Amino acid sequence: MKSFVPYPEDSDFPIENLPYGVFSTKKDPSHRIGVAIGDQILDLKAIRHLFAGPHLKDKQHVFEEPVLNSFMGLSPAAWKEARETIQTLLSSENRVLQDDAELRNRALVPQSDGEMHLPAIIGDYTDFYSSINHATNVGIMFRGRENALLPNWKHLPVGYHGRASSIVVSGTPIRRPNGQTCPVEGAAPVFGPCRLMDFELEMAFFVGGPPTKLGEPIPVNEAQDHIFGMVLMNDWSARDIQKWEYQPLGPFLAKNLGTTISPWVVTLLALEPFKVDNLPQDPKPFPYLQHNDKFNFDIKLEIFITPEGGTPHKISQTNYKEMYWTAKQQLAHHTITGCNVNPGDLMASGTISGTVANSYGSLLELGWKGTNPVELPGGTYRKFLVDGDEVTLKGHCEGKGYRVGFGSCTGKLLPALDLQ
Amino acid sequence: MKSFVPYPEDSDFPIENLPYGVFSTKKDPSHRIGVAIGDQILDLKAIRHLFAGPHLKDKQHVFEEPVLNSFMGLSPAAWKEARETIQTLLSSENRVLQDDAELRNRALVPQSDGEMHLPAIIGDYTDFYSSINHATNVGIMFRGRENALLPNWKHLPVGYHGRASSIVVSGTPIRRPNGQTCPVEGAAPVFGPCRLMDFELEMAFFVGGPPTKLGEPIPVNEAQDHIFGMVLMNDWSARDIQKWEYQPLGPFLAKNLGTTISPWVVTLLALEPFKVDNLPQDPKPFPYLQHNDKFNFDIKLEIFITPEGGTPHKISQTNYKEMYWTAKQQLAHHTITGCNVNPGDLMASGTISGTVANSYGSLLELGWKGTNPVELPGGTYRKFLVDGDEVTLKGHCEGKGYRVGFGSCTGKLLPALDLQ
Repeated sequence: MKSFVPYPEDSDFPIENLPYGVFSTKKDPSHRIGVAIGDQILDLKAIRHLFAGPHLKDKQHVFEEPVLNSFMGLSPAAWKEARETIQTLLSSENRVLQDDAELRNRALVPQSDGEMHLPAIIGDYTDFYSSINHATNVGIMFRGRENALLPNWKHLPVGYHGRASSIVVSGTPIRRPNGQTCPVEGAAPVFGPCRLMDFELEMAFFVGGPPTKLGEPIPVNEAQDHIFGMVLMNDWSARDIQKWEYQPLGPFLAKNLGTTISPWVVTLLALEPFKVDNLPQDPKPFPYLQHNDKFNFDIKLEIFITPEGGTPHKISQTNYKEMYWTAKQQLAHHTITGCNVNPGDLMASGTISGTVANSYGSLLELGWKGTNPVELPGGTYRKFLVDGDEVTLKGHCEGKGYRVGFGSCTGKLLPALDLQ
Repeated sequence: MKSFVPYPEDSDFPIENLPYGVFSTKKDPSHRIGVAIGDQILDLKAIRHLFAGPHLKDKQHVFEEPVLNSFMGLSPAAWKEARETIQTLLSSENRVLQDDAELRNRALVPQSDGEMHLPAIIGDYTDFYSSINHATNVGIMFRGRENALLPNWKHLPVGYHGRASSIVVSGTPIRRPNGQTCPVEGAAPVFGPCRLMDFELEMAFFVGGPPTKLGEPIPVNEAQDHIFGMVLMNDWSARDIQKWEYQPLGPFLAKNLGTTISPWVVTLLALEPFKVDNLPQDPKPFPYLQHNDKFNFDIKLEIFITPEGGTPHKISQTNYKEMYWTAKQQLAHHTITGCNVNPGDLMASGTISGTVANSYGSLLELGWKGTNPVELPGGTYRKFLVDGDEVTLKGHCEGKGYRVGFGSCTGKLLPALDLQ
C-alpha cells in the first residue's frame, strides 16, 4: 500500500497506521479531528462529506466535533469503514483527494503547523497495575522477595480510579509538586517540594462503543468492541508523597499532579498485525476473565531523559507484550460489578517493565530505589528526576518495510512553587 | 421571610433554602434547571430573563442549559445574586411572578410531575474519609484498637479518586454486584454475588467557580469560593469484594457499582446560618490546611431501611458536624500537589459516623462486622443488606420556624445477575 503523501520508511505515521488526534492551527484555532499521515495531518472536518459508506453516511457530524468522543462512540464496523475510506483517499492509486488541489490543500496540514490537544473528553480514567515485572519489582523493594506479589495479583487485574482532569497532552510542562512526606518512618511528616519525582512508562486505551449501562458487565469476549485505540502515557509519580498518603485508600495526590498522554490514538485496527501470544496465566483466571484469542501486542517502547540544555538520552527500552493481563481482561474486570463505561474513558496499563534492569519503566526501578543511580552522558546520575528534565516516551510496532508508531509523549519537569 | 408558594413549617424547601436541581416533565422531557420551593419546582429556564442584576444579566444562558455546570462555574457573587433574585421573586411581597398568571403557571411545576436527574456532569469524583469516628471504628475492626487510625490520618484528609460514571440520582435501583471475594483468608478466592452489601451515609459538595489550572493549588482561605453546595450521598459498598481487591491501590470495583446522590443541591448560602465550630485538630495541621473561620455545619442526618413490601425504619441518626476535616481543608489538600478542579466535580465526606452505636453511618459499623445485627420491625435482622431493601438517607438543618432540608437520597437493592 502506498500513499501519495510521501514519507520515509521509518515514519511513525504511514498509510498502515492512520491514528486519530485533535489539532488546531494558528490560522484556524478551532479544535478539529485529524489523522496523521507522514509529516502531515489530514483534516477530517474538511473531508467529512467523503465518508459515504453505510455506517458513516448519516454520521458525518462526528467529524465536525472538537473531540473524538462521538466517533469513538460508534461501532467497530464504523471505525473500520472510516479507516478504509481514509486509506483509499490517501492511496496513491486514488485520485479523489490527490487531484483536487483546492480540497487537498485545505485538508492536508503540516504537523509542524498543528498544535495537538487532548483527543477526547476523558470522563473517567483508570490505572491498572498489569505488568508482572513492575509489580514484582515494586513488591520486592517495599515488602521483600517473599511477599512481592500480593495474594490477589494473579487472580484479578489490580487497578484504581485516577484523576481525569489532570491528564494533559504531550508537551505540557509538569510542575514538581509540594506535599506532605514522612522521610523518617515513625517521625512527624514534613511539608515541601517532592524529593522523589518519577515518571512511569505506561500505555492506555480509549474506550469506544456506545455507553454501557450501570449494572451490566461487558463480557470478556465482547470487550474488544469497546476498545478504540491506544496511546503512550507518562504517569508522573511523586514517590515520597505516595508513600505517606497511600494507606489505606490508595495513591491520590502523588498521581493527580499531571498525567501525560501522546496525542495520536493508534487504533486497534492498525495494531492488529502486531498481535502476539498472551502471557501464560497461572492460576487460570475465573471464567469472566478467560479469552482464547490473542490480545497482546508487540509494541517496542523507549524512555529518554533530556536534561536541561542537553540532548535526549535513552535510559530504558521495553515492550508492551510484557503485560500479564490483557486490555480485554482489564475491561471485563472493570465492569464485572456493574460499572458503566463511556466512549472516551481512558484505561492505563500500569508501569510496563521488562525482565532485565535496563528495561524497567520507572526511575524507582531503574535506580532501584535510589541505590543504583542511572548514568547520563557527562557523568551525571539520576536517582530521581531533577528540575528541567524532559522525559520522552516513544513506541512503535515494526512491520515489514513500515512501522506503526505512536509518536512521542513528552513533558518537562518545572521547579516546585515556593509555598513555604 | 414568606413565600407566596405555601408550604408547611417542616418543609425541606422553604424560601430560606432554594436548592438547585435538574428536572424534566412528561409534557416537556428536556432537562432543565429548577429550584425547589415547598412542593413545587421553579423552572429557571422559564424565568431566565428576570435575572437582571450586574452579575447575571449577561449570563442568563446558564439557566438554559440542561445541567448546572455553567452556573456552578460562575462566582460566589453571581450565586448570591441568583439567590436574592429568586428569593425576591418567590416572596409574598413581590408581585412580578405572583401576579403574572401565565408566567407563574409556566414556571411553577409540581414536584410530583417532575422527574429529577443528575444536577451536573460530574467530571471527577473524589471520596474522602474525614469522619474520625468512622475511620476509628473501621480501624478497630480491621487492625485493632491500638492501630485504629493510621499515622497519616490526623495530618491530612485521606481520600481517593472514585468513579464518576457510576454516580446516579436518588431513586435509581442498584444491582447487587458479582465479583471476586476471598472468604477464607489464605485460601483461593471465589466468584459470585457479593454477600456483604452495605450502604455508606455521606455528604458531598459540588465544586464551583471557574476551572483552576494544573499546577496551581487553591489556598485554603480561598477554598470556600470553589464550593457551590452540598448533597446527600449513599456510597454503596461491597465489603467482601473490597477486602479482597483493595491492597495495594485502594477500593475499586467495591465502589463503582453505583453511588447515589440526592437531586437537590443545597447551596453554601443556605447553609451559612448553620455553621458551627470546627472540630479541634491535634496535632495542628500544616499551614496549607489551617483556617480560622467556622466551616462545619449542623446538619442532622438519618438512615432508613425499607424491606421489600415493608415500611421505612430508622436505623441510625448522626450529624455532619462530626467531620474532623472541613470541606475547605479537603479542597486545599486535594489541590496542593497541583491537581486542577472543574465546576461540577464532586467531593464526598466519607462515611459520617457519630460517637455512639446508633449513630454510625454504615451497616458494617451498626452491626459491628456482623456480630451485632441491626433489628428491624417484625423481628428480622440485618448484618448486611438483603435484596429488595431500600435505603433512604435524609438530612436537614433546623432553623427557627423553618428547616433547610436536603430531601432524600434513596435506592433499592436488586438481586445480582446470574453470571455463574
